[in-house]
Amino acid sequence: MVLKYYYDLLSQPSRALYILLKINKIPFEACPVALRNGEHLTDEFKEKYNRFQKVPFIHDNNFILSESVAIVRYISRQYGLGEEWYPKESKQQALIDEYLEWQHNNTRLYLAMYTQHAFIIPMLKGQEPDLKKVDKWKKSVYMTMDKIEELWLKNHKYICGNTLTVADLFAACEIEQPRLAGFDPTEGRPKLESWLNSVRNELEPVYSEAHTFVNKIAASQEKAKL
Amino acid sequence: MVLKYYYDLLSQPSRALYILLKINKIPFEACPVALRNGEHLTDEFKEKYNRFQKVPFIHDNNFILSESVAIVRYISRQYGLGEEWYPKESKQQALIDEYLEWQHNNTRLYLAMYTQHAFIIPMLKGQEPDLKKVDKWKKSVYMTMDKIEELWLKNHKYICGNTLTVADLFAACEIEQPRLAGFDPTEGRPKLESWLNSVRNELEPVYSEAHTFVNKIAASQEKAKL
Repeated sequence: MVLKYYYDLLSQPSRALYILLKINKIPFEACPVALRNGEHLTDEFKEKYNRFQKVPFIHDNNFILSESVAIVRYISRQYGLGEEWYPKESKQQALIDEYLEWQHNNTRLYLAMYTQHAFIIPMLKGQEPDLKKVDKWKKSVYMTMDKIEELWLKNHKYICGNTLTVADLFAACEIEQPRLAGFDPTEGRPKLESWLNSVRNELEPVYSEAHTFVNKIAASQEKAKL
Repeated sequence: MVLKYYYDLLSQPSRALYILLKINKIPFEACPVALRNGEHLTDEFKEKYNRFQKVPFIHDNNFILSESVAIVRYISRQYGLGEEWYPKESKQQALIDEYLEWQHNNTRLYLAMYTQHAFIIPMLKGQEPDLKKVDKWKKSVYMTMDKIEELWLKNHKYICGNTLTVADLFAACEIEQPRLAGFDPTEGRPKLESWLNSVRNELEPVYSEAHTFVNKIAASQEKAKL
Protein backbone atom coordinates (compact mmCIF):
# COMPACT_ATOMS: atom_id res chain seq x y z
CA MET A 1 0.00 0.00 0.00
CA VAL A 2 1.23 3.45 -0.90
CA LEU A 3 2.15 5.99 1.79
CA LYS A 4 -0.80 8.25 2.62
CA TYR A 5 0.10 11.87 3.27
CA TYR A 6 -2.40 14.12 5.08
CA TYR A 7 -1.78 17.85 4.78
CA ASP A 8 -3.16 21.35 4.28
CA LEU A 9 -1.07 23.57 2.02
CA LEU A 10 -1.88 26.55 4.25
CA SER A 11 0.17 24.82 7.00
CA GLN A 12 3.91 25.54 6.85
CA PRO A 13 5.27 22.06 7.77
CA SER A 14 2.63 20.51 5.48
CA ARG A 15 4.17 22.42 2.56
CA ALA A 16 7.71 21.46 3.59
CA LEU A 17 6.90 17.73 3.61
CA TYR A 18 4.87 17.98 0.40
CA ILE A 19 7.85 19.53 -1.41
CA LEU A 20 10.27 17.01 0.15
CA LEU A 21 8.20 14.01 -0.95
CA LYS A 22 7.69 15.35 -4.49
CA ILE A 23 11.31 16.40 -5.10
CA ASN A 24 12.58 13.07 -3.76
CA LYS A 25 10.10 11.26 -6.02
CA ILE A 26 8.59 9.28 -3.11
CA PRO A 27 5.19 7.99 -4.26
CA PHE A 28 2.32 9.01 -1.98
CA GLU A 29 -1.44 9.27 -1.95
CA ALA A 30 -2.33 12.93 -1.47
CA CYS A 31 -4.93 13.30 1.32
CA PRO A 32 -5.69 17.01 1.71
CA VAL A 33 -7.42 18.11 4.94
CA ALA A 34 -9.11 21.52 4.92
CA LEU A 35 -8.33 22.88 8.41
CA ARG A 36 -10.40 25.99 7.72
CA ASN A 37 -13.52 23.79 7.47
CA GLY A 38 -12.72 22.05 10.78
CA GLU A 39 -12.52 18.60 9.13
CA HIS A 40 -9.94 17.55 11.72
CA LEU A 41 -12.09 18.43 14.74
CA THR A 42 -14.54 15.50 14.65
CA ASP A 43 -14.41 12.47 16.96
CA GLU A 44 -14.19 10.23 13.90
CA PHE A 45 -11.06 12.06 12.74
CA LYS A 46 -9.50 11.75 16.19
CA GLU A 47 -10.16 8.03 16.40
CA LYS A 48 -9.54 6.90 12.84
CA TYR A 49 -7.03 9.34 11.45
CA ASN A 50 -4.98 11.22 14.02
CA ARG A 51 -5.27 11.60 17.78
CA PHE A 52 -3.51 15.00 17.73
CA GLN A 53 -6.11 16.44 15.31
CA LYS A 54 -3.41 18.36 13.46
CA VAL A 55 -1.61 18.15 10.11
CA PRO A 56 0.73 17.00 8.66
CA PHE A 57 0.72 13.29 9.41
CA ILE A 58 1.19 10.01 7.53
CA HIS A 59 -0.41 6.59 7.44
CA ASP A 60 2.18 4.07 6.30
CA ASN A 61 0.08 0.92 6.13
CA ASN A 62 -1.12 0.72 9.73
CA PHE A 63 1.57 2.99 11.14
CA ILE A 64 0.39 6.51 11.97
CA LEU A 65 2.97 9.24 12.59
CA SER A 66 2.65 12.96 13.36
CA GLU A 67 5.15 15.77 13.87
CA SER A 68 6.82 16.91 10.66
CA VAL A 69 10.40 16.56 11.93
CA ALA A 70 9.77 13.00 13.15
CA ILE A 71 8.23 12.27 9.73
CA VAL A 72 11.32 13.58 7.88
CA ARG A 73 13.54 11.20 9.83
CA TYR A 74 11.18 8.26 9.36
CA ILE A 75 10.89 8.91 5.62
CA SER A 76 14.67 9.19 5.31
CA ARG A 77 15.06 5.74 6.91
CA GLN A 78 12.15 3.96 5.21
CA TYR A 79 12.10 5.52 1.75
CA GLY A 80 15.45 7.31 1.45
CA LEU A 81 16.09 10.98 0.79
CA GLY A 82 18.82 12.45 -1.42
CA GLU A 83 22.00 12.48 0.71
CA GLU A 84 22.25 16.29 0.46
CA TRP A 85 18.78 16.70 2.01
CA TYR A 86 19.43 14.86 5.28
CA PRO A 87 22.98 13.43 5.33
CA LYS A 88 23.74 10.09 6.96
CA GLU A 89 27.14 11.37 8.14
CA SER A 90 26.68 11.82 11.88
CA LYS A 91 28.01 15.37 12.43
CA GLN A 92 26.35 16.80 9.32
CA GLN A 93 23.05 15.21 10.34
CA ALA A 94 23.46 16.55 13.90
CA LEU A 95 23.80 20.14 12.62
CA ILE A 96 20.59 19.80 10.61
CA ASP A 97 18.86 18.30 13.67
CA GLU A 98 20.15 21.30 15.64
CA TYR A 99 18.23 23.65 13.36
CA LEU A 100 15.12 21.45 13.23
CA GLU A 101 14.97 21.43 17.06
CA TRP A 102 15.88 25.12 17.42
CA GLN A 103 13.14 26.27 15.03
CA HIS A 104 10.22 25.03 17.18
CA ASN A 105 10.43 27.92 19.60
CA ASN A 106 11.82 30.42 17.10
CA THR A 107 10.93 30.42 13.39
CA ARG A 108 8.00 28.06 13.85
CA LEU A 109 6.39 29.56 16.96
CA TYR A 110 6.75 33.27 16.26
CA LEU A 111 5.89 33.37 12.57
CA ALA A 112 2.89 31.11 13.18
CA MET A 113 1.67 33.26 16.09
CA TYR A 114 2.03 36.44 14.03
CA THR A 115 0.07 34.92 11.13
CA GLN A 116 -2.51 33.49 13.51
CA HIS A 117 -3.34 36.92 14.93
CA ALA A 118 -2.85 38.98 11.76
CA PHE A 119 -4.66 36.65 9.34
CA ILE A 120 -6.08 33.29 10.54
CA ILE A 121 -8.22 34.44 13.50
CA PRO A 122 -9.62 37.50 11.64
CA MET A 123 -10.43 35.28 8.62
CA LEU A 124 -12.11 32.51 10.62
CA LYS A 125 -14.00 34.83 12.95
CA GLY A 126 -14.71 37.60 10.45
CA GLN A 127 -13.35 40.25 12.80
CA GLU A 128 -10.66 42.93 12.74
CA PRO A 129 -7.19 41.82 13.93
CA ASP A 130 -6.16 42.71 17.52
CA LEU A 131 -3.44 45.20 16.57
CA LYS A 132 -1.73 45.10 19.95
CA LYS A 133 -1.19 41.34 19.64
CA VAL A 134 -0.22 41.62 15.97
CA ASP A 135 2.40 44.21 16.88
CA LYS A 136 3.76 42.12 19.75
CA TRP A 137 4.24 39.06 17.53
CA LYS A 138 5.72 41.17 14.72
CA LYS A 139 8.51 42.20 17.09
CA SER A 140 9.16 38.49 17.77
CA VAL A 141 9.30 37.89 13.99
CA TYR A 142 11.96 40.62 13.63
CA MET A 143 13.95 39.12 16.52
CA THR A 144 13.80 35.67 14.92
CA MET A 145 14.87 37.01 11.51
CA ASP A 146 17.87 38.67 13.23
CA LYS A 147 18.77 35.27 14.67
CA ILE A 148 18.39 33.50 11.33
CA GLU A 149 20.84 35.99 9.81
CA GLU A 150 23.29 36.09 12.71
CA LEU A 151 23.24 32.50 13.98
CA TRP A 152 22.48 30.51 10.85
CA LEU A 153 23.36 32.42 7.69
CA LYS A 154 26.45 34.25 9.01
CA ASN A 155 29.17 32.05 7.57
CA HIS A 156 27.53 30.18 4.72
CA LYS A 157 24.98 30.38 1.93
CA TYR A 158 22.42 28.01 3.47
CA ILE A 159 21.18 27.36 7.03
CA CYS A 160 23.57 24.47 7.74
CA GLY A 161 26.36 24.99 5.20
CA ASN A 162 26.87 25.64 1.52
CA THR A 163 24.23 23.24 0.21
CA LEU A 164 20.48 23.26 0.58
CA THR A 165 19.11 20.81 3.16
CA VAL A 166 15.82 20.02 4.83
CA ALA A 167 16.62 22.82 7.33
CA ASP A 168 16.33 25.42 4.55
CA LEU A 169 13.08 23.91 3.35
CA PHE A 170 11.52 24.08 6.83
CA ALA A 171 12.79 27.63 7.39
CA ALA A 172 11.59 28.88 4.00
CA CYS A 173 8.06 27.49 4.38
CA GLU A 174 7.76 29.28 7.74
CA ILE A 175 9.12 32.57 6.40
CA GLU A 176 6.60 32.53 3.53
CA GLN A 177 3.70 32.32 6.01
CA PRO A 178 3.34 35.94 7.24
CA ARG A 179 2.86 36.97 3.58
CA LEU A 180 -0.71 35.67 4.11
CA ALA A 181 -1.18 38.84 6.15
CA GLY A 182 0.69 41.03 3.64
CA PHE A 183 3.93 41.08 5.66
CA ASP A 184 7.17 39.90 4.06
CA PRO A 185 9.79 39.20 6.79
CA THR A 186 12.66 39.44 4.26
CA GLU A 187 11.92 43.10 3.47
CA GLY A 188 14.99 45.29 4.09
CA ARG A 189 17.13 42.18 4.69
CA PRO A 190 19.11 41.56 1.48
CA LYS A 191 20.96 38.51 2.88
CA LEU A 192 17.75 36.80 3.96
CA GLU A 193 16.00 37.73 0.71
CA SER A 194 18.85 36.35 -1.37
CA TRP A 195 18.82 33.08 0.65
CA LEU A 196 15.04 32.70 0.24
CA ASN A 197 15.27 33.33 -3.50
CA SER A 198 17.97 30.65 -3.80
CA VAL A 199 15.78 28.14 -1.94
CA ARG A 200 12.79 28.98 -4.14
CA ASN A 201 14.82 28.73 -7.36
CA GLU A 202 16.39 25.40 -6.47
CA LEU A 203 13.01 23.83 -5.72
CA GLU A 204 10.90 24.98 -8.66
CA PRO A 205 8.37 24.13 -9.98
CA VAL A 206 7.25 22.16 -6.88
CA TYR A 207 7.90 25.08 -4.55
CA SER A 208 5.47 27.35 -6.41
CA GLU A 209 2.92 24.57 -6.68
CA ALA A 210 2.97 24.06 -2.89
CA HIS A 211 2.70 27.83 -2.38
CA THR A 212 -0.15 28.44 -4.85
CA PHE A 213 -2.69 29.39 -2.14
CA VAL A 214 -0.15 31.41 -0.15
CA ASN A 215 0.90 33.35 -3.24
CA LYS A 216 -2.71 33.97 -4.25
CA ILE A 217 -3.70 35.33 -0.83
CA ALA A 218 -0.44 37.33 -0.55
CA ALA A 219 -1.14 38.94 -3.94
CA SER A 220 -4.64 39.97 -2.86
CA GLN A 221 -3.17 41.49 0.34
CA GLU A 222 -0.69 43.46 -1.75
CA LYS A 223 -3.49 44.67 -4.01
CA ALA A 224 -5.58 45.73 -1.00
CA LYS A 225 -2.69 47.88 0.19
CA LEU A 226 -2.48 49.87 -3.09
CA MET B 1 39.69 13.79 24.31
CA VAL B 2 36.68 13.16 26.50
CA LEU B 3 33.27 14.61 25.66
CA LYS B 4 32.68 17.94 27.41
CA TYR B 5 29.15 18.46 28.69
CA TYR B 6 27.98 22.01 29.54
CA TYR B 7 24.85 22.23 31.68
CA ASP B 8 23.00 23.85 34.56
CA LEU B 9 21.01 21.45 36.74
CA LEU B 10 18.29 24.08 37.09
CA SER B 11 17.62 23.64 33.34
CA GLN B 12 15.22 20.81 32.50
CA PRO B 13 16.91 19.44 29.35
CA SER B 14 20.29 19.82 31.10
CA ARG B 15 19.10 17.40 33.78
CA ALA B 16 17.68 14.98 31.19
CA LEU B 17 20.99 14.73 29.33
CA TYR B 18 22.99 14.54 32.55
CA ILE B 19 20.93 11.53 33.69
CA LEU B 20 21.10 9.94 30.23
CA LEU B 21 24.91 10.21 30.07
CA LYS B 22 25.40 8.88 33.61
CA ILE B 23 22.97 5.96 33.36
CA ASN B 24 24.44 4.94 30.01
CA LYS B 25 27.95 5.17 31.50
CA ILE B 26 29.19 7.54 28.80
CA PRO B 27 32.33 9.23 30.14
CA PHE B 28 32.16 13.03 30.09
CA GLU B 29 33.85 16.06 31.59
CA ALA B 30 31.24 17.91 33.65
CA CYS B 31 31.26 21.61 32.77
CA PRO B 32 28.59 23.34 34.87
CA VAL B 33 27.45 26.81 33.74
CA ALA B 34 25.65 28.95 36.32
CA LEU B 35 22.92 30.63 34.28
CA ARG B 36 21.76 32.61 37.32
CA ASN B 37 25.18 34.39 37.36
CA GLY B 38 24.93 35.26 33.66
CA GLU B 39 28.13 33.34 32.80
CA HIS B 40 26.69 32.55 29.38
CA LEU B 41 26.00 36.17 28.43
CA THR B 42 29.57 37.34 27.71
CA ASP B 43 31.04 37.84 24.22
CA GLU B 44 33.79 35.36 25.10
CA PHE B 45 31.19 32.67 25.88
CA LYS B 46 29.41 33.38 22.60
CA GLU B 47 32.59 33.11 20.55
CA LYS B 48 34.45 30.31 22.30
CA TYR B 49 31.75 28.14 23.82
CA ASN B 50 28.32 28.46 22.27
CA ARG B 51 26.82 30.93 19.81
CA PHE B 52 23.29 30.35 21.15
CA GLN B 53 24.34 31.33 24.71
CA LYS B 54 22.14 28.62 26.18
CA VAL B 55 22.62 25.23 27.87
CA PRO B 56 22.84 22.30 27.45
CA PHE B 57 25.49 21.84 24.77
CA ILE B 58 28.49 19.61 24.10
CA HIS B 59 32.03 20.00 22.77
CA ASP B 60 33.09 16.71 21.23
CA ASN B 61 36.69 17.52 20.29
CA ASN B 62 36.15 20.46 17.98
CA PHE B 63 32.52 19.71 17.28
CA ILE B 64 30.03 21.96 19.11
CA LEU B 65 26.37 20.93 19.29
CA SER B 66 23.34 22.53 20.97
CA GLU B 67 19.69 21.51 21.31
CA SER B 68 19.12 18.63 23.71
CA VAL B 69 17.12 16.49 21.29
CA ALA B 70 19.79 16.83 18.57
CA ILE B 71 22.38 15.88 21.22
CA VAL B 72 20.47 12.71 22.22
CA ARG B 73 20.50 11.55 18.61
CA TYR B 74 24.16 12.42 18.13
CA ILE B 75 25.16 10.64 21.36
CA SER B 76 23.15 7.57 20.37
CA ARG B 77 25.08 7.36 17.09
CA GLN B 78 28.56 8.24 18.36
CA TYR B 79 28.62 6.67 21.81
CA GLY B 80 25.64 4.29 21.84
CA LEU B 81 22.67 4.29 24.18
CA GLY B 82 20.92 1.27 25.64
CA GLU B 83 18.51 -0.03 22.95
CA GLU B 84 15.50 0.56 25.24
CA TRP B 85 16.38 4.27 25.60
CA TYR B 86 16.31 5.21 21.92
CA PRO B 87 15.63 2.12 19.77
CA LYS B 88 17.27 1.65 16.38
CA GLU B 89 14.12 -0.02 15.03
CA SER B 90 12.63 2.58 12.69
CA LYS B 91 9.00 2.69 13.84
CA GLN B 92 9.83 2.56 17.56
CA GLN B 93 12.37 5.34 17.08
CA ALA B 94 9.82 7.38 15.10
CA LEU B 95 7.30 7.24 17.97
CA ILE B 96 9.91 8.53 20.41
CA ASP B 97 10.84 11.27 17.93
CA GLU B 98 7.13 12.12 17.73
CA TYR B 99 7.08 12.88 21.47
CA LEU B 100 10.43 14.70 21.42
CA GLU B 101 9.13 17.01 18.66
CA TRP B 102 5.65 17.39 20.18
CA GLN B 103 6.99 18.44 23.59
CA HIS B 104 8.67 21.65 22.36
CA ASN B 105 5.42 23.57 22.16
CA ASN B 106 3.67 21.65 24.92
CA THR B 107 5.47 20.22 27.99
CA ARG B 108 8.64 22.22 27.34
CA LEU B 109 7.14 25.61 26.49
CA TYR B 110 4.32 25.84 29.02
CA LEU B 111 6.00 24.41 32.10
CA ALA B 112 9.07 26.56 31.44
CA MET B 113 6.96 29.70 30.98
CA TYR B 114 5.02 29.01 34.19
CA THR B 115 8.26 28.52 36.16
CA GLN B 116 9.83 31.56 34.52
CA HIS B 117 7.05 33.84 35.73
CA ALA B 118 6.33 32.14 39.07
CA PHE B 119 9.94 31.61 40.17
CA ILE B 120 12.86 32.59 37.87
CA ILE B 121 11.97 36.24 37.12
CA PRO B 122 10.96 37.02 40.75
CA MET B 123 14.20 35.39 42.00
CA LEU B 124 16.50 37.18 39.53
CA LYS B 125 14.79 40.57 39.83
CA GLY B 126 13.90 40.36 43.52
CA GLN B 127 10.29 41.25 42.81
CA GLU B 128 6.85 39.76 43.41
CA PRO B 129 5.52 37.47 40.63
CA ASP B 130 3.02 38.91 38.14
CA LEU B 131 0.02 36.84 39.27
CA LYS B 132 -1.97 37.44 36.11
CA LYS B 133 0.81 35.93 34.01
CA VAL B 134 1.41 33.11 36.52
CA ASP B 135 -2.26 32.21 36.39
CA LYS B 136 -2.35 32.31 32.57
CA TRP B 137 0.61 29.91 32.29
CA LYS B 138 -0.79 27.65 35.03
CA LYS B 139 -3.86 27.09 32.84
CA SER B 140 -1.52 26.06 30.01
CA VAL B 141 0.23 23.63 32.38
CA TYR B 142 -3.13 22.00 33.24
CA MET B 143 -4.01 21.75 29.55
CA THR B 144 -0.65 20.11 28.80
CA MET B 145 -1.00 17.64 31.69
CA ASP B 146 -4.43 16.68 30.29
CA LYS B 147 -2.75 15.98 26.95
CA ILE B 148 0.05 13.94 28.55
CA GLU B 149 -2.60 11.74 30.19
CA GLU B 150 -4.97 11.52 27.22
CA LEU B 151 -2.59 11.42 24.27
CA TRP B 152 0.49 9.74 25.68
CA LEU B 153 -0.32 7.69 28.78
CA LYS B 154 -3.76 6.48 27.72
CA ASN B 155 -2.90 2.99 26.54
CA HIS B 156 0.42 2.19 28.18
CA LYS B 157 2.55 2.65 31.26
CA TYR B 158 5.14 4.95 29.69
CA ILE B 159 5.00 7.80 27.17
CA CYS B 160 5.79 5.65 24.11
CA GLY B 161 4.90 2.14 25.25
CA ASN B 162 5.47 -0.21 28.15
CA THR B 163 9.16 0.52 28.69
CA LEU B 164 10.90 3.67 29.80
CA THR B 165 12.57 5.64 26.99
CA VAL B 166 14.26 8.99 26.50
CA ALA B 167 10.75 10.46 25.98
CA ASP B 168 9.85 9.73 29.63
CA LEU B 169 13.11 11.22 30.83
CA PHE B 170 12.52 14.47 28.93
CA ALA B 171 8.88 14.66 30.10
CA ALA B 172 9.75 13.95 33.75
CA CYS B 173 12.49 16.60 33.94
CA GLU B 174 10.01 19.19 32.59
CA ILE B 175 7.23 18.15 34.98
CA GLU B 176 9.57 18.49 37.98
CA GLN B 177 10.31 22.12 37.08
CA PRO B 178 7.21 23.98 38.40
CA ARG B 179 7.98 22.50 41.86
CA LEU B 180 10.62 25.27 42.01
CA ALA B 181 7.63 27.58 42.50
CA GLY B 182 5.87 25.20 44.92
CA PHE B 183 3.48 23.82 42.28
CA ASP B 184 3.33 20.08 41.60
CA PRO B 185 1.58 19.43 38.24
CA THR B 186 0.85 15.79 39.20
CA GLU B 187 -1.35 16.79 42.15
CA GLY B 188 -4.83 15.26 41.85
CA ARG B 189 -3.71 13.19 38.85
CA PRO B 190 -3.06 9.63 40.11
CA LYS B 191 -2.12 8.27 36.68
CA LEU B 192 0.44 11.00 36.07
CA GLU B 193 1.78 10.72 39.61
CA SER B 194 2.17 6.97 39.31
CA TRP B 195 4.00 7.37 35.99
CA LEU B 196 6.37 10.00 37.44
CA ASN B 197 7.12 7.82 40.45
CA SER B 198 7.96 4.90 38.15
CA VAL B 199 10.36 7.08 36.15
CA ARG B 200 12.01 8.36 39.34
CA ASN B 201 12.36 4.86 40.82
CA GLU B 202 13.84 3.35 37.68
CA LEU B 203 16.51 6.05 37.46
CA GLU B 204 17.74 6.31 41.06
CA PRO B 205 20.15 7.32 42.44
CA VAL B 206 21.16 9.49 39.46
CA TYR B 207 17.69 11.03 39.18
CA SER B 208 17.80 12.42 42.71
CA GLU B 209 21.39 13.58 42.25
CA ALA B 210 20.38 15.60 39.16
CA HIS B 211 17.37 17.01 41.04
CA THR B 212 19.24 17.96 44.23
CA PHE B 213 18.80 21.73 43.70
CA VAL B 214 15.23 21.37 42.48
CA ASN B 215 14.28 19.24 45.50
CA LYS B 216 15.99 21.65 47.91
CA ILE B 217 14.20 24.69 46.53
CA ALA B 218 10.88 22.78 46.29
CA ALA B 219 11.21 21.79 49.97
CA SER B 220 11.78 25.40 51.02
CA GLN B 221 8.71 26.45 49.00
CA GLU B 222 6.64 23.77 50.77
CA LYS B 223 7.95 24.99 54.14
CA ALA B 224 7.09 28.60 53.30
CA LYS B 225 3.52 27.52 52.58
CA LEU B 226 3.06 26.00 56.08
